[in-house]
Amino acid sequence: MTDITMIDAARARIGDRVRRTPLLSSPFLDDIAGRRLLVKPECLQHTGSFKYRGALSAITALGPAAQAGVLAYSSGNHAQGVALAARENAIPATIIMPANAPALKIANTRALGAEVILYDRARENREDIGARLVADRGLALIRPYDDPQVIAGQGTTGLEIAEQAAAMDIDRAEVLVCCGGGGLTSGIALALAEHAPDMQVRPVEPAGFDDAARSLAAGRIVANAHKTGSICDAILTPAPGDITFPIMARLCGPGIAITDDDALHAMALAFVRLKLVAEPGGAAALAAALFHGTALTEDTVIVTISGGNVDPQMFTQALETLT
Amino acid sequence: MTDITMIDAARARIGDRVRRTPLLSSPFLDDIAGRRLLVKPECLQHTGSFKYRGALSAITALGPAAQAGVLAYSSGNHAQGVALAARENAIPATIIMPANAPALKIANTRALGAEVILYDRARENREDIGARLVADRGLALIRPYDDPQVIAGQGTTGLEIAEQAAAMDIDRAEVLVCCGGGGLTSGIALALAEHAPDMQVRPVEPAGFDDAARSLAAGRIVANAHKTGSICDAILTPAPGDITFPIMARLCGPGIAITDDDALHAMALAFVRLKLVAEPGGAAALAAALFHGTALTEDTVIVTISGGNVDPQMFTQALETLT
Repeated sequence: MTDITMIDAARARIGDRVRRTPLLSSPFLDDIAGRRLLVKPECLQHTGSFKYRGALSAITALGPAAQAGVLAYSSGNHAQGVALAARENAIPATIIMPANAPALKIANTRALGAEVILYDRARENREDIGARLVADRGLALIRPYDDPQVIAGQGTTGLEIAEQAAAMDIDRAEVLVCCGGGGLTSGIALALAEHAPDMQVRPVEPAGFDDAARSLAAGRIVANAHKTGSICDAILTPAPGDITFPIMARLCGPGIAITDDDALHAMALAFVRLKLVAEPGGAAALAAALFHGTALTEDTVIVTISGGNVDPQMFTQALETLT
Repeated sequence: MTDITMIDAARARIGDRVRRTPLLSSPFLDDIAGRRLLVKPECLQHTGSFKYRGALSAITALGPAAQAGVLAYSSGNHAQGVALAARENAIPATIIMPANAPALKIANTRALGAEVILYDRARENREDIGARLVADRGLALIRPYDDPQVIAGQGTTGLEIAEQAAAMDIDRAEVLVCCGGGGLTSGIALALAEHAPDMQVRPVEPAGFDDAARSLAAGRIVANAHKTGSICDAILTPAPGDITFPIMARLCGPGIAITDDDALHAMALAFVRLKLVAEPGGAAALAAALFHGTALTEDTVIVTISGGNVDPQMFTQALETLT
């Protein structure tokens, strides 16, 4: 189980290679939110999402055990994070991606030096393909969230939030985190429990895919009814992880659900007011702060923008919400 | 005349209020540029452009002389920079803007607390209106670039570039700066001449509006033939300033001209690879690094993205260059 010692150790391993993203703000967004709003833009992280932190943490923790190469399943941000982290450590990366994943994400993952194995989502099972590769080639599997060292890497985001907020004399806040499987949410919660104990982390998810919120309310892991059906693709996961859920249950406040329209509108406001590119799932926490203020209680809210890997068509659709 | 002592003094006055923007990179952009490319995103600065630095420097340098209020002429980024800097110092700001300036920029300037006086570009002279306000109300005029304390404020960008590059063990580079009247260009050049003397600053301008490049080549101030005709509105100025030009002539290398299409394509790549929103004029230096590499000589190029205040329609047009 990840703890603060593992997060500190992760930072010692990866701190000089991870980008320390700033903590941004806009008086215009404060006005909309009705409170002080600070934004941690992990879209500015290497590969355009926080996933690079966890991937680099896991690979550096493996050490010699990763020399034969690493394996990941992903159609998106985790793929690129693992590919870059592996390349920087001069070890081979194999990424199993659905053949119908966005062409740009497949091309990016290949361009970062990974071997991409495409599979047919309808006819093949990616776990079977992965198990064969692990057995045949001795690859080490890097899970997207349910891995203690991945969570530790994502937790370095929380160390930065605590330090940057303290430098602004902020010690109380609600911290809203875009939540898929819970790796970023649980990592930040662990870091803040140690370094900013008066901050409370709350997961934000798309309506209908609020498995973390419902699991927290139920006190046990509850799955979503559907696998697809929101534009927030980066944070659509079946259920919280076996490792991430107990951490969230111990440390997080209630979850918040946002709509796809909320996400698009938040993307547009990040464009106008912060000059940042957010993807739909990456804008979920900002959307909650801007449009679900009645769910909040603190005078200060800190939100993650967890990623910015969005195609131009979707971004243009978001900008149309401004007119 | 601005010197390094004034830049250091400006930082001492404004350093804790100005956002220290990061120095970003992407392996994909390195590949296009054919060299190492680092990006200083001043679009992330307060008000969405570097102009806030100079405005805050000038206002804090005026001290009691600004108590009656400050005045600026601007249709864009300088207006917002002066408005926010004045509000933060609890002094009134009056901004003279053309009545046909973009509605959003007028609304933003008002929302930041400034009194906006609109004039008819065809029938009225803004200098006459301004002179009357200075006489009647005792306002202090903040010029957009030809003011030593404004240049000193913009020069704080150069102090950060020198420090951030040194932390990456970089001491040699060409530093490309989006150039309008030359405030940012001359300020950065002064800072780097002191702290990174092996870096050379070069101004980047739109083709047909390359007054700085032609002035540097001629050894005297040369004006542009036209006032409008490029989408790079933020950096269209009639000629280099009387204060900025001698600094550039002493310290800068040859200028580089880019096309509007270059700027749009660079905006699109900043979207895909850096998750940043750049305006056309703000993307000029990035465009030079990406598409005019034959004009460069060093293995490392550092570029400013000077602003991100672009309307959705123009941004959508930029994204269309990707398809």
